[in-house]
Amino acid sequence: MGGNTWGRLFRVTTFGESHGRALGAVIDGCPPGLTLNEAYIQEELEKRRPGKALGETPRKEKDKVEILSGVFEGFTTGTPIALVIYNMDVSSSAYEKIREVFRPGHGDFTYYIKYGGFRDYRGGGRSSGRETVARVAAGAVAKRILEEYHIEVTAYTIALGGIEAKKRNLEIIYQNHLFCPDLEAYQKMCEKIEEVKKEGDSLGGVVEVLVKGVPAGLGEPVFDKLEADLGKALLSIGAVKGFEIGEGFRASYLKGSENNDPISSEGFLKNSAGGVLAGISTGQDLIMRVAVKPIPSIRKPQKTINLHKEEVEISIEGRHDISAIPRIVPVISAMVRIVLADHLLRQLSNLAFQKRLKFPEFF
Amino acid sequence: MGGNTWGRLFRVTTFGESHGRALGAVIDGCPPGLTLNEAYIQEELEKRRPGKALGETPRKEKDKVEILSGVFEGFTTGTPIALVIYNMDVSSSAYEKIREVFRPGHGDFTYYIKYGGFRDYRGGGRSSGRETVARVAAGAVAKRILEEYHIEVTAYTIALGGIEAKKRNLEIIYQNHLFCPDLEAYQKMCEKIEEVKKEGDSLGGVVEVLVKGVPAGLGEPVFDKLEADLGKALLSIGAVKGFEIGEGFRASYLKGSENNDPISSEGFLKNSAGGVLAGISTGQDLIMRVAVKPIPSIRKPQKTINLHKEEVEISIEGRHDISAIPRIVPVISAMVRIVLADHLLRQLSNLAFQKRLKFPEFF
Amino acid sequence: MGGNTWGRLFRVTTFGESHGRALGAVIDGCPPGLTLNEAYIQEELEKRRPGKALGETPRKEKDKVEILSGVFEGFTTGTPIALVIYNMDVSSSAYEKIREVFRPGHGDFTYYIKYGGFRDYRGGGRSSGRETVARVAAGAVAKRILEEYHIEVTAYTIALGGIEAKKRNLEIIYQNHLFCPDLEAYQKMCEKIEEVKKEGDSLGGVVEVLVKGVPAGLGEPVFDKLEADLGKALLSIGAVKGFEIGEGFRASYLKGSENNDPISSEGFLKNSAGGVLAGISTGQDLIMRVAVKPIPSIRKPQKTINLHKEEVEISIEGRHDISAIPRIVPVISAMVRIVLADHLLRQLSNLAFQKRLKFPEFF
Amino acid sequence: MGGNTWGRLFRVTTFGESHGRALGAVIDGCPPGLTLNEAYIQEELEKRRPGKALGETPRKEKDKVEILSGVFEGFTTGTPIALVIYNMDVSSSAYEKIREVFRPGHGDFTYYIKYGGFRDYRGGGRSSGRETVARVAAGAVAKRILEEYHIEVTAYTIALGGIEAKKRNLEIIYQNHLFCPDLEAYQKMCEKIEEVKKEGDSLGGVVEVLVKGVPAGLGEPVFDKLEADLGKALLSIGAVKGFEIGEGFRASYLKGSENNDPISSEGFLKNSAGGVLAGISTGQDLIMRVAVKPIPSIRKPQKTINLHKEEVEISIEGRHDISAIPRIVPVISAMVRIVLADHLLRQLSNLAFQKRLKFPEFF
Repeated sequence: MGGNTWGRLFRVTTFGESHGRALGAVIDGCPPGLTLNEAYIQEELEKRRPGKALGETPRKEKDKVEILSGVFEGFTTGTPIALVIYNMDVSSSAYEKIREVFRPGHGDFTYYIKYGGFRDYRGGGRSSGRETVARVAAGAVAKRILEEYHIEVTAYTIALGGIEAKKRNLEIIYQNHLFCPDLEAYQKMCEKIEEVKKEGDSLGGVVEVLVKGVPAGLGEPVFDKLEADLGKALLSIGAVKGFEIGEGFRASYLKGSENNDPISSEGFLKNSAGGVLAGISTGQDLIMRVAVKPIPSIRKPQKTINLHKEEVEISIEGRHDISAIPRIVPVISAMVRIVLADHLLRQLSNLAFQKRLKFPEFF
Repeated sequence: MGGNTWGRLFRVTTFGESHGRALGAVIDGCPPGLTLNEAYIQEELEKRRPGKALGETPRKEKDKVEILSGVFEGFTTGTPIALVIYNMDVSSSAYEKIREVFRPGHGDFTYYIKYGGFRDYRGGGRSSGRETVARVAAGAVAKRILEEYHIEVTAYTIALGGIEAKKRNLEIIYQNHLFCPDLEAYQKMCEKIEEVKKEGDSLGGVVEVLVKGVPAGLGEPVFDKLEADLGKALLSIGAVKGFEIGEGFRASYLKGSENNDPISSEGFLKNSAGGVLAGISTGQDLIMRVAVKPIPSIRKPQKTINLHKEEVEISIEGRHDISAIPRIVPVISAMVRIVLADHLLRQLSNLAFQKRLKFPEFF
Repeated sequence: MGGNTWGRLFRVTTFGESHGRALGAVIDGCPPGLTLNEAYIQEELEKRRPGKALGETPRKEKDKVEILSGVFEGFTTGTPIALVIYNMDVSSSAYEKIREVFRPGHGDFTYYIKYGGFRDYRGGGRSSGRETVARVAAGAVAKRILEEYHIEVTAYTIALGGIEAKKRNLEIIYQNHLFCPDLEAYQKMCEKIEEVKKEGDSLGGVVEVLVKGVPAGLGEPVFDKLEADLGKALLSIGAVKGFEIGEGFRASYLKGSENNDPISSEGFLKNSAGGVLAGISTGQDLIMRVAVKPIPSIRKPQKTINLHKEEVEISIEGRHDISAIPRIVPVISAMVRIVLADHLLRQLSNLAFQKRLKFPEFF
Repeated sequence: MGGNTWGRLFRVTTFGESHGRALGAVIDGCPPGLTLNEAYIQEELEKRRPGKALGETPRKEKDKVEILSGVFEGFTTGTPIALVIYNMDVSSSAYEKIREVFRPGHGDFTYYIKYGGFRDYRGGGRSSGRETVARVAAGAVAKRILEEYHIEVTAYTIALGGIEAKKRNLEIIYQNHLFCPDLEAYQKMCEKIEEVKKEGDSLGGVVEVLVKGVPAGLGEPVFDKLEADLGKALLSIGAVKGFEIGEGFRASYLKGSENNDPISSEGFLKNSAGGVLAGISTGQDLIMRVAVKPIPSIRKPQKTINLHKEEVEISIEGRHDISAIPRIVPVISAMVRIVLADHLLRQLSNLAFQKRLKFPEFF
C-alpha cells in the first residue's frame, strides 16, 4: 500500500479521485521565503485545461486551486503547503454502466483485484488521468524553487499518431495547442486527430523534455541516479510506457567513440548523454523523451468482461480526449520539476556542509 | 546525499568501490524461514563473471560472497542479511595516470564536482560497473523470495551493436555467452564484437526481460507504479539509457484499438501493456526492455581534459569489456527481482489485512 | 525540512496552521474495505473540543471534518484519505501584538530562526497545539484498523498540577472532563485548576496509556522498536517532555530479579516491561506514561524579547487553557493508534509471507 | 519487517548478531572531505569495551573495526561507508542450553513469535546488547561531522542501583569506569555493584546527556521534532525504558511561570526546556536523561518456560555485566550524535536554499 508520496526532501503527497470530492497535494519540504499564490499555481493548471482546439475533451472543468496552508502573507513558511482542487459539476451517472465492466487499457481490473473489490469506479477513480491535476499543482511549487536557480523545464510534443516533428522550434510551442515545435508537423497532427476522432479511436505520441540551467552535481550514486528518478517520475504518469535520456535507445546502436561526449577546456563538446554521467548532472542541458500510449477510452467497440466474468462489448461514449497529448505535457514538466527540486535540495545539503555553511546567530 | 538504498519493505543498501577493500549489500526486510547459503548467491555472481568467451575482460575477478549476518543454520532469520565480497588481486597502479583526467562517458567529472574533489578515482570508484556485484548478490536473496511464489525473471540480449535477435528462443540463452535467444544473431554479434575490438571501440545493445508468474495486484497507485519502480531500478544501472514496458515506444505509434488488450472470460487476449495496467500487475507476464549504451572505456583516442582544465588525449588501455552485455544481463535480472520482492511484500500486507489474517497465539 | 509525515506502511501527513485556512491530514496506506464516514471521525474530534468544564478555553471551535478522498460509498478504497478541517470564525487580530515578540516556552523564537523570519505568527502557526486536530482525525482512521483486530487504546490523566490519581478506575474516565480514573483526585485537580487560573498561571500533568489486545510480534528490531516509535510519536506532541514504558524510570532503581517478568505456561506472570521485550510486543497490555508540561501561554507577566532583541514584558491575555490536559488526552490516543496501525500492517506482511498467503486468482 | 535503518540524510543501517560472523554498519550520506580512519572509530569502540573494573564482563572481546568502503586516502568520499567488526573467539556452546528456553526480560520469546521460530538464539542473536557495537562505530562517523560544527555530546551516569550522583563534575567522568560525575556516588555505586554481584542479581540506572554547541534551528515541526527523534533513538537501545528532556517528568509538576524560560537580550535566562522549543533547538545546551533497566541476565533463579510451554527454572551463568551501565554510555552518545548529524544535514539544506548557496562552476 502507499505509493502516493514522492521525494526525499521536497516531498509531494497527492490524493483524490476523478469524481470524488476533491483532488490535491501536500508539499512538505518547500523552503521558506518564496513568493507563492493561487494565481501562480492556477496558471500551471490552465495549461492542462481542455482548450477549444481539436483533440481535447470539451468537458468544462473548473480546476480552481486553493492554498490551505504553508503560505503566509504571500510567502512560503517552510511548513507543509496543502493544495486542494474541488471537483465541480461532475456528473457521475455516465459511469453507472461501467460500474461492473473492466474497460480495456484501464486500471479497472487491476484496482478491482488489488483492493478486493472496493473502488471508486467513476471515471477510473484514483487511476484516472485526472489525478495529474494534483501533480501539476505541486509542480508549480517546484517551479518556484527552480526559478530561484534559473532552472527551466520545457516539454513539447515531438510525435503524435506517427507524425514526427522534424524541427525543434521551441518558440512556437505555446502558440499551438499541441505544444509542437514544428508547425508543419502540427498541421498534420491536427488532421490525424480529426481522422481518428471519426473512427472513434485514439492516438499516442512522444514528448521530449529539455531542461536548461541545471547545475552540475545533482543526482545521487547508485539507486537515486538523476535519470533513474526522472524515469520513475515520468513512468509514474498513467499513459507513459517508455523513457529515454540523451541518445536513449539509439545509444544501443552506437559505438563508444560515437556515444561518448568529448570534453574541451570550454566544456563538453556534445551531449549524447543527455546531461547526466553516472547518475549525476554534468551541467549541460537535460534532454529526455517519453512514449505516451493512445488513450484507452475509445468509442470503437472492444471486447471485455464484467466482474462476473461475463464477456461484453464496450463502446466508451462521452467526451474523451483523442490523445493524452497535449494535456500530459504540463504534467510531464511538473514531474520533472518535482524531481529536480528534490535533488537540488539534497545537493544543497551536501554543498552546504562542504562549505561549512554557518548557522545564523541571533544572540 | 544518500541514494544507496532501494525499497520500502525489502530494503537493499549497497556499498563499495571498484578498487576498494570490499563491496557488499545489507538486505533489511527479508522474511524469516527461507533457506539461503553462500553457494546459492555465488551461483548468481558467477553469471556476471568474465568468461573465456569473446567480448569480456580477461581480468580474473574472484568474487567470493560471504554472508555476515541474518542467516542461521541455513535459514534466514528476518534480521538484516549482510553480504560482502572482498576485492582481490586488484592492481590499481594502472589507474594512476587517470587520477587527474576525466574519462569521457564516465562519472569522473560529475563525481569530482559533486564531492568537491574527494573521490576514489581508481576504476571509477563507486561509479564503476563493478558496483553491480552487490546488486547481483542482493538479487539472489530477492530470488529466494520470488521462488516461493513461483515468480521467474529471465533477461536476455535482443540487440548488440545494431544486430537484432529475430527469435525469442529462451531455451538457448544460457548456452551462449551473450544470453542471446537467437543463435544466428548471436554469431553475428560475436563477429561484430571481434571487429570492434580491433578498432579499439565498444558496443551497446538492448536487453529484454520477461517475468512469468507475477500475481495480479503488485504495484501501487500514482508514484510507486510497478513500471515506475522497474524503470527506476533499471535506469539506476550505470549503462542504461532507456526503458520501456509492453509496446513501449512503439505504443506511441499505435491507436487505442490496437494498443488496448481486450479481455475474455479466460483472461487477457494479448499483452501490449506488458503486464501492467495503471501501475498494477495484471497477472500476465511482465515484458520490458532496456537500452544499454556502449562501454565508455575505449582504446580509441578521445579528447578530454584534466582537473586543471588542460586538454589531453586519452586512450584507455587495459582489459576492458567491449560491451556491458553480457555482464549487465544478470544485473538486470537482479534489479527486477529486488523490485518485485519489495512489491510482493507490500501487497502481502494489504492482502493479509483484507483477509484479517490471524496473529499466532502462543498462550 | 520536512518532518510532517509519520509511518512506513500506514502513512500520515498533516498540514495546517492555527489561524490559517484549514488543517488536515492525508492518510496513505489505509487498507480497503473498512467502513468510514465523517461522523465517526467527528466523534474523535469532539473529544478534544473545549467543553464547558473548568480548565478549558471557551473559544468556540467548530472543527468539522470533511473527507475529500479515499472513501467511496462508505468504504475505504485503499487510496489516500484526505481529511480537512477548515478554520472558522478565527479572529487573528488578537495576535497582532505578538507579531514581533517571542513568547517564552513557545516555538516563536525557534521558528523565526529556522525559517529565516518567514512564519505565520498567529497563534503559533504550525507550532500551535491546534495542529493536533489533524492527528486526531488521522487517529480515527487508525482506530478503524485496530478495531478489526480488537486492539483498544485508552489514555487517561494520572497527575495534574502535582495531584496524582491513586486509582485506575477506567470506567469513570469519560464521566469527568479530565479523563481522570480517580474521582477524588479529579476533584482536587479541579480545585487546583481554579486556583491557578486566578494566578494567571498554568499546570502540567502526566497521562498514562493502556493498550489492550495487542498481538505478540509487533515492532521491529533495533531502530524501529515498538517503544521507540511510541516514544517518538508521543514526544512529537508539543507539550510532551518525557516518555516511559512499563516501569520506566522506576526500572532504573530495580534489580533484575524485580524487573524481569517471569513466564508460566499460562503466560507472563507480571508486566514490568509494559508489554514489550527487545522492541517487540509480548501479547500483554502495553502500558506507558508521558509527562505533559504546563501550557506556556500565561497571563502572569514574563520577561522576553522581540525580534529586534529589545527586552519586553509579556502577559498573554485571551482564552487559553490552563493545562494541555485534558485536550491532549485524545491526541495521545490518536498517536498511539497511528503507531500501532503502522506496525500492525508491517507485521502482517511478515506473517503473510511466513504463511505463503495466496494471491486471489480471477481467471 | 525492516527497522534497521536510521535517518533521512545521514542514514545508518546496522546488521549482525551477537554470535554471528560479524556486526557492522553502512553509513549512507556522510559528506565528502572528512578525515576518517579506523583508529578514530576504534577509539570510540574502546569506550564500550569491558574494562578490568567492577561490574563488567571479563569476556575478552576484540572489537576491531574495518572500513570497507567510502574512505579514500584518509578522507570520506561521500559514498557509503561500510564498517565491519568480526566476532572473534566466541564460543556459543554456552548458549546450547537456552536454545529452547525463553529468558525473562530478553527478546527470546518475542523474536520466536515474530519470526516464526527462526532465530539465532545464541546470546540473544540480533536482540543482544552486542548489536550496539555497530551503533558506536557509526556514531564515530557522526562525531566527525559534529566536530566540524563544534557540537559536543557528553553522556554520564547519574544514578545506578538507586544511588544518585549529586554533582555534575564532568571533568572526572573519564577518570572512573562508570562515567560518573560524582566521585562519592561512584564509590557507593561500586560497592552496590559488588553487593549485587554476590546476590547474582543486576542493577539499572539513569544516564544524562549534555550537548554543547548545538546551533538554533535543528529539528523539524510536527513528527520529526528534535526531541522526538532523540527520544526514539535512545528508546531504541535495548535497555532503555524511559526518556525525558529538560525538566522532563518534573515539568509535569511545575507551573507555566516556573517551567517557561524567560528571554533577555543576551539569550535565554534558564533552560528548563532542555534546549528545544516546539521541536527545534534553541541554541542552548541540550539536556536529557534516559532510564536504563537492570540487565535481565542474572544468576538468581527465575521462572520461565521453554518453547514447548513447559515451565522451567533458569539461572543464567556466565560472565554477564551487572548493569548495562557503563557500557551503554558510549552507545547513548553515539545515538545522540547520529540524530544530530542527520538533523544538521537536513537544516543545512534549508539554510543553503535560504541563502541561495551557489553551485560550483567548473567551466
